[in-house]
Amino acid sequence: MRPSGRALDQMREVSLEIDVTKHAEGSCLVKFGDTHVLCTASIEEKPPAWLRGSGLGWVTAEYGMLPRATHTRNRREATAGKQGGRTQEIQRLIGRALRAVVDRPALGERQITVDCDVLQADGGTRTASITGGFVALHLAAQKLLKAGDVSHLPIEGEVAAISCGIYKGKSVLDLDYLEDSDAETDANFVITGRGGLVEVQATAEGLPFMDFHLTEMLALAKKGTGELIAKQRAVLGIA
Amino acid sequence: MRPSGRALDQMREVSLEIDVTKHAEGSCLVKFGDTHVLCTASIEEKPPAWLRGSGLGWVTAEYGMLPRATHTRNRREATAGKQGGRTQEIQRLIGRALRAVVDRPALGERQITVDCDVLQADGGTRTASITGGFVALHLAAQKLLKAGDVSHLPIEGEVAAISCGIYKGKSVLDLDYLEDSDAETDANFVITGRGGLVEVQATAEGLPFMDFHLTEMLALAKKGTGELIAKQRAVLGIA
Amino acid sequence: MRPSGRALDQMREVSLEIDVTKHAEGSCLVKFGDTHVLCTASIEEKPPAWLRGSGLGWVTAEYGMLPRATHTRNRREATAGKQGGRTQEIQRLIGRALRAVVDRPALGERQITVDCDVLQADGGTRTASITGGFVALHLAAQKLLKAGDVSHLPIEGEVAAISCGIYKGKSVLDLDYLEDSDAETDANFVITGRGGLVEVQATAEGLPFMDFHLTEMLALAKKGTGELIAKQRAVLGIA
Amino acid sequence: MRPSGRALDQMREVSLEIDVTKHAEGSCLVKFGDTHVLCTASIEEKPPAWLRGSGLGWVTAEYGMLPRATHTRNRREATAGKQGGRTQEIQRLIGRALRAVVDRPALGERQITVDCDVLQADGGTRTASITGGFVALHLAAQKLLKAGDVSHLPIEGEVAAISCGIYKGKSVLDLDYLEDSDAETDANFVITGRGGLVEVQATAEGLPFMDFHLTEMLALAKKGTGELIAKQRAVLGIA
Amino acid sequence: MRPSGRALDQMREVSLEIDVTKHAEGSCLVKFGDTHVLCTASIEEKPPAWLRGSGLGWVTAEYGMLPRATHTRNRREATAGKQGGRTQEIQRLIGRALRAVVDRPALGERQITVDCDVLQADGGTRTASITGGFVALHLAAQKLLKAGDVSHLPIEGEVAAISCGIYKGKSVLDLDYLEDSDAETDANFVITGRGGLVEVQATAEGLPFMDFHLTEMLALAKKGTGELIAKQRAVLGIA
Amino acid sequence: MRPSGRALDQMREVSLEIDVTKHAEGSCLVKFGDTHVLCTASIEEKPPAWLRGSGLGWVTAEYGMLPRATHTRNRREATAGKQGGRTQEIQRLIGRALRAVVDRPALGERQITVDCDVLQADGGTRTASITGGFVALHLAAQKLLKAGDVSHLPIEGEVAAISCGIYKGKSVLDLDYLEDSDAETDANFVITGRGGLVEVQATAEGLPFMDFHLTEMLALAKKGTGELIAKQRAVLGIA
Repeated sequence: MRPSGRALDQMREVSLEIDVTKHAEGSCLVKFGDTHVLCTASIEEKPPAWLRGSGLGWVTAEYGMLPRATHTRNRREATAGKQGGRTQEIQRLIGRALRAVVDRPALGERQITVDCDVLQADGGTRTASITGGFVALHLAAQKLLKAGDVSHLPIEGEVAAISCGIYKGKSVLDLDYLEDSDAETDANFVITGRGGLVEVQATAEGLPFMDFHLTEMLALAKKGTGELIAKQRAVLGIA
Repeated sequence: MRPSGRALDQMREVSLEIDVTKHAEGSCLVKFGDTHVLCTASIEEKPPAWLRGSGLGWVTAEYGMLPRATHTRNRREATAGKQGGRTQEIQRLIGRALRAVVDRPALGERQITVDCDVLQADGGTRTASITGGFVALHLAAQKLLKAGDVSHLPIEGEVAAISCGIYKGKSVLDLDYLEDSDAETDANFVITGRGGLVEVQATAEGLPFMDFHLTEMLALAKKGTGELIAKQRAVLGIA
Repeated sequence: MRPSGRALDQMREVSLEIDVTKHAEGSCLVKFGDTHVLCTASIEEKPPAWLRGSGLGWVTAEYGMLPRATHTRNRREATAGKQGGRTQEIQRLIGRALRAVVDRPALGERQITVDCDVLQADGGTRTASITGGFVALHLAAQKLLKAGDVSHLPIEGEVAAISCGIYKGKSVLDLDYLEDSDAETDANFVITGRGGLVEVQATAEGLPFMDFHLTEMLALAKKGTGELIAKQRAVLGIA
Repeated sequence: MRPSGRALDQMREVSLEIDVTKHAEGSCLVKFGDTHVLCTASIEEKPPAWLRGSGLGWVTAEYGMLPRATHTRNRREATAGKQGGRTQEIQRLIGRALRAVVDRPALGERQITVDCDVLQADGGTRTASITGGFVALHLAAQKLLKAGDVSHLPIEGEVAAISCGIYKGKSVLDLDYLEDSDAETDANFVITGRGGLVEVQATAEGLPFMDFHLTEMLALAKKGTGELIAKQRAVLGIA
Repeated sequence: MRPSGRALDQMREVSLEIDVTKHAEGSCLVKFGDTHVLCTASIEEKPPAWLRGSGLGWVTAEYGMLPRATHTRNRREATAGKQGGRTQEIQRLIGRALRAVVDRPALGERQITVDCDVLQADGGTRTASITGGFVALHLAAQKLLKAGDVSHLPIEGEVAAISCGIYKGKSVLDLDYLEDSDAETDANFVITGRGGLVEVQATAEGLPFMDFHLTEMLALAKKGTGELIAKQRAVLGIA
Repeated sequence: MRPSGRALDQMREVSLEIDVTKHAEGSCLVKFGDTHVLCTASIEEKPPAWLRGSGLGWVTAEYGMLPRATHTRNRREATAGKQGGRTQEIQRLIGRALRAVVDRPALGERQITVDCDVLQADGGTRTASITGGFVALHLAAQKLLKAGDVSHLPIEGEVAAISCGIYKGKSVLDLDYLEDSDAETDANFVITGRGGLVEVQATAEGLPFMDFHLTEMLALAKKGTGELIAKQRAVLGIA
C-alpha cells in the first residue's frame, strides 16, 4: 500500500556514519533512506551570556537545508535575509530534544552547538536531524571527557525521533516525501532510550484524527525509536 | 495544590466578548483568566498569489504581544526588525488550527487574516488566541454570507484549544503563568466541536513523560475544549 | 458643518481609564472618541548606556498600531521587518513631549519606556498617545515615590496634546478621521499644564495657510489641552 | 551675542550653485555657511505603482549625510541596514515641502526624486535641503518643458525653508551648529514665494516657549525665506 | 618546504564525483585535498526579469559554507541575516567564471543556478567551487540537450580555477589552509580549456610582489588548470 | 580610436584637492576626468575589538555612491537596507590597498576609517578612491604625528591605483565609462611608489584574454600609477 512498498511499521534504511568531517568535535552523516543530514557538534568554551556564573552548560541547535536539497530549488535563507518560520520551528525542536538528555551541571559553563544541514531531503528531515544530532553531540561529549574537561559524560541516556502519519486511513511509520505530501495526519515523536516521551507533535493536515490514531502512532514510534537507538548505541559503542 | 486553588480539571474563568472593534469584519476579546487577547478577522477580496485561479480561499493568522503584556517588558518585534521564532511558531499553529474548520472552496478566492494580539499575558496565550480567533473568523464569515458573497457559511463546525501540563506530578488543565513556569510537561490541544483532534503538542520541560500522562492530558483537554466550544456557540448564536 | 456635528471648538468625548493592565508600573487606556490607545509605562532600573554615570534618568516612547486598528488592515510592522517612517516620527514626538515634564536628575539612573499601542484608530492617535502616555508615566513615577526609590516625584506639571486643522476653510479642534482625510491643514500642539508650548507642528496638506490660521489653531489648542489636563488631574488625583 | 557675531535676524552667507553634476536632470549645491548639501533631481518616466492611471505625477525626496559630514564620524546608514528615524523624518519633510508647489496634473504620470546629500554639516541641513532641492526640482521641470514633455511648467511659485530658535532667551534666525546645540527652542519654517505657510515645526528643547516666541520666530522666518526666494529666483532666472 | 610536503608545482589530490544528489539537474562533489564542495546546478524555465524577451539565458552562482566547515564554527549567514562581503565576492566570481563558457543564446530564456556549498574547508574553496561548478553546469546542460530543450549544448569549452601564492618567497601552486594563512601573496586564476585567461586576481597580504612573481604564478596556474580540465573532461566523457 | 580621443597610454586629467571638508582629519576630492570622489579619513582613538591589547592599529574603508552619481538613478543603499555585493567588494579592495602602506605598530591602537563617496561617476571609481583615499589617509597620519600621538609617520611610501582594459583589441589605460561598458577585458592595478604590486585584478567580460595582454596592461598601469604617485607627492609635499 505504501509507495515504497514498505510494511506499515517498517522504517526506511537508516545509516549513521560518524567522524565525517575533519574539524568538528563530533559529526554524523545520518541517512533515513534518501534523506541525508550532516550533523556536527561544535564546543565553545563559554556559555551564552545569560548563563555566566550559573555553573550550567547549554546545548543549542541550528538547522539548514541546502538550496537544492529538494525537488525544486528553494531560495537560500542567507540571501533571503532571515530564517523562515519552518526552519526556526525545527531548530527549536532539535535543541529541546537534545537538551532532554544533557546533564547541564556536568557540562559546565560551555556551549555545544549542533548544526544539522540537510544535503538531500525526502521527508523526515527533523527526525533524522535529532537522531543524528544526538550522535554528534555524544561524540563531542566524549571528547570533553577524554580531555578531562568534564568529570563524567554530560549525557544521560539516548534520544531519537521518528515521524508517523495517517496515510490512506492507516497509521504508518517513517513517512517519506511522497507519503508526507499526501498524509491526512503528520506526527513526530521524540523518545528516549528508556522509552520516555520528550516531545509529541501531531497535526491533522486534512480531517481531524481520533484518539486511537494517536495511540497507534505512539506505538509505531516506540518501535521505530527503539531501532534507531539500537543503531546509535552500536555506532557509539555504548553497551 | 494549584497556586490558583483550582481543581486539577478546572479551567480559569473564560469570557468571549464580540464586536469589540469598529473596523474589523469580525472581532473577539477573549479572556482566559488574566490572559487577554484581542482577535480580529480581516477579509481581503483577493487570495494570496499562489491561489489565483484555484477557486480556493485562504485563512492565515498573525500573532503579536504588546511589549508590556508580560511581567517584564519585552522588546517590540517591530523594533527588533523581525518576529521571533516563538511568535512564528505560534502564528503558524493558529493558522493551521483555524484552517481545519474552513471550507476553502466555499470561501472562494479571498483571504481572511486573523490577528491575535495579546494585551495581557498570564499563560495560555496561544490557546486563547485559537479559541477567540475562531469566534472572530466565524463573525467575518457570517458577514460574507449576509452580504451574499458566499453561498453558504464557509466554516464547518467549531475549533478551540486548551493547554494541559504535568505539574508536581499531576495532570492539570489550563496552566496559568505560575504553573507554566514550573510544569514538568507542557501540552497544547486543538480539538473540534465533534471531538476530533486537530493538533497535539506535548513537550517535556524536565523529565520525559509517560504514555499514561498523554492519555490523562488528552482527557482533560477534551473536557476543557468542550466547555470552550459551548461558550463559542453561545456567543455566536449557534444552536 | 463638521461630519460629527461638533462645534468648531468642541473635542470628542475623552476618557482616561487607569490601571488597566496587571503588569505595567503605570497604565492608561485613553479614548478620544473612537480612537483608543493603550498606554503603559515600564520602569527599568538601568538607564541607556550613554547615561551611565551621569546621575540622570531617561524617558522614551514607542508607538504601534494593531494591524486592524484602521479601516483596512495594515501590514504588521514586525512582519515588514521595520518600523515605518510615520511610526518613528510619532514615537519620537511622544518621547520629546513627555521628557518636557520629567525631572531627569530626580528620576535618577533609570529608564521609563512608555508604550502607546493603538487598539482602534479614528484620527488623533498621536495626541491621544501623549495625553494618555503622560498619565501612565505619572502613575509609574508615583510608584517610584511610594517605594522610596526617588526622593520626590520626578514629574513637573502636566502635558497633553491635541490636533487642530483647517477644515472647509475653518479652524477646528480635534480632527477625527473623516475630517483629517479632508483637511487643508493639519496641526498638532503639545502644551503643558501652565500653558507653555512644547511642540507646534502645522502642515499644509493642500494650499498654504496664513499666519492668522496659526493663531486661531493655537487658541483652540489651548482650550483643548486645558480640558485634557483637567481630566488628567482628576484621574491622577492632583489638586 | 551669537557665537558667529551675526545679528539676531541675520542669516549665514547663502549660495546656490546650479548644474553641478553631469548626469542629473537638475542639480544644485546649496551652502548655508558651512552647511553644504548637494541636491539632485532625477526624472523617472513612470509614477509610483499607486498612481498608475491617475494622470498625476509625484515628487519625493531622499536625504542622506556622508559619514564624516559631522564633527565625529557617524555610522553609514547603508552599513547599519536602515535609515534612522531622524533621516526619515527629514526626507518626509522635504518631500511634503516640495510637493506644496508642484502641479501634479501638469507633471503627468512621472516621478521626480530629489536627493539631498549633506557633504558637510553645520546646522540647518533640512532647511538648506528644501531650499536647494527646490532649485534642482525647478531645473528638472524646465527640462521637461523644453523637451515638450509637459505643456506648461509643473511648478507653481517657489518654496524655501529656514530655521529659527530661541537662543539665550532671544529669537534668532538660521541657527548654526553651535547655537543649535544650545538653543532652548528649535523651529523650522517652510514658506512659499507668496508668504504662505507650508510647514511650521517648533520644539522646546528645554523650557516650554510662549506664544510670543512663536510670533517672533515666524516674523524672522518670513524675512529669511524672503531672502532665500530672491536668491532662488536669481539663479533660476525667474522674473 | 611546503607543510604538506608537496612540490612547488604540485596540486593536492583532486576528485570530481558526479550525480551525487537525487534532485539537482547536475551535481558534483569536488575535493581539492581536504576542501570538499558540493556543487549543484538547478535549471529554472524562466530567466531573470531583465532578460525577458531577449532570447538570452543566464547562469548565476551562490556560495555558502556550512557553519562548521572551518576550524572554528562560523555564524550561520541565515542567522546573521545577510551574506557577508567575502561570500558575495566569491559567488560573484564563480558566476562570472562560469558565464565565460556559456553560449547564452543557445541556452535560451532560462536560468541555471549553480550552488556551491562548502562541506569542509581547507583552503581554495572558491577555485574548487568553480572547477566543480563547471561540471555540475555541464551535466545540467547535457540534460537540456537530451530533452531537446536546446538545439546544441549551450557550453563552449571548459573552465577551471586554481590558486597560487608566494610562500616563504617561492611561487607555489594550490595553497592549502596552512599555506594560505601564511602566504605573502595569494592569487586565483580562472582559465579555459584552451588556455585563455578569464580572471586573474593577485593580492599582496604582506609585502608587495614583483612582476616576475605574477609571471611565475601564471605559469603554475596554467599547469594546474590543465590538469583540472583533463579531470573534468574525463568525468564528463568529453573527448 | 578611444571615444575621448586619448592615446592608448593616456590617462584622463587627474586632480587631487586636499582639505575640502571642515571636520575630517584628512580629506581629498579626487577627480579622474568626470569621476569625482570625496575621500575623508576619520581617526578613532580605539581600535576594533579584536585588536585590543595587540598594540596594532587598523585602517578600514567604506565606499558609497550618491544615488544620482550615475546616468540613471540607483536606489540608495540605506533605503535598500544593505550594501550591495559590488559595494562591499570595492570597499574591501580599498581597505586592503591602503593597509599595504600602513605601519600598524606605529599607528598604535587606533583606527582610521577612509570614506570614499562618489559624487559623480564616469568609470574608475575604485581606482580614484584608492588614489584619493591614500591622500586623505596620509593627511590624517600627518595630523597624528604633529600632535605627538605617534612617534613617526605610520605610513610607508605611497599607493595608487589605475584601471586598464582591452578595448577593440588594444590595451588601453584608465577606462572611462564609455570604454568600460564596451571593453573585452577590465583590469585594476594597485601599485606602490616603488613599483611593487599590491593587487592585480583582471576580468574577461567577453572573450578570454591572453598572457601578453596581462603583460601589456601591467606596463600601462606602471606608467599610470607612476604619474598618480607624482601627483600625490606633490600635493602632500613629499620630496
